[in-house]
Amino acid sequence: MRLTRFSDIGLRVLIYLARSGERPAPVTVAEIASQFDIPVNHLVKVVGQLARCGWIQATRGRNGGLRLHVAPASLKIGAVLRQLEGEAELADCSGQACRLSPDCILRGALADGLRAFYAAMDRYTLADITAGSTGEKIVRMQRDFMKQLA
Amino acid sequence: MRLTRFSDIGLRVLIYLARSGERPAPVTVAEIASQFDIPVNHLVKVVGQLARCGWIQATRGRNGGLRLHVAPASLKIGAVLRQLEGEAELADCSGQACRLSPDCILRGALADGLRAFYAAMDRYTLADITAGSTGEKIVRMQRDFMKQLA
Repeated sequence: MRLTRFSDIGLRVLIYLARSGERPAPVTVAEIASQFDIPVNHLVKVVGQLARCGWIQATRGRNGGLRLHVAPASLKIGAVLRQLEGEAELADCSGQACRLSPDCILRGALADGLRAFYAAMDRYTLADITAGSTGEKIVRMQRDFMKQLA
Repeated sequence: MRLTRFSDIGLRVLIYLARSGERPAPVTVAEIASQFDIPVNHLVKVVGQLARCGWIQATRGRNGGLRLHVAPASLKIGAVLRQLEGEAELADCSGQACRLSPDCILRGALADGLRAFYAAMDRYTLADITAGSTGEKIVRMQRDFMKQLA
């Protein structure tokens, strides 16, 4: 079982931005793409979705860039994943993919399991997952990146 | 988020066999492959794993075939998925894939979420998911298949 690449990238963007509030220069798409080795075209789509959800703000222009637009302690990871994962089911239950559909009890069971997963992820906020060692690592990554540019 | 194709096929095999106890002819790999439109080479690998787990028995020869080797009410779906999904994590956290590893708090959070998912799936047994409409559908599928052969 794997998160979609879309969610995976989305979480990294949020984690990265959660610890960028104190630096002078804004974070750019190019910076995140370079730091996590993510293709820019993928990243642009994810950033667009995060902005539509109201979690980040993207401004254009010379001093433009990406900023977190919510308090990290108020953003639940389950809520983020529900949005980024979308409506996809855990198994391909479409009529063509499986003859058991629409009579399948497993389908409802898997939906229960998914709800339990999201509920467990709701016990973590963006602040929780960017504390301690993760936060320090992010700050270090950002410092090293800016040194390279200087 | 998607189950692996391996697990998806594994669940279908177990569901199919759970309702085949009353028919005279044993179920074959070819039958399941045909019923669910699964490539035989994929199916053989999954069947091998289900047999190694002790959940099904595969016998060779003229009257050989596949049979369930556990009571459906004793087989928890969470346990099945833990085995079939294996050790894979929800995100690709390997050192090469993500620079946050090994400092990443999200990694542990996702592992918590996965445990919650499996615990929720443990509330369902193979008997539960092959009852009612699913069971009736399977029995109908098997009856129709045998009619075609006759």
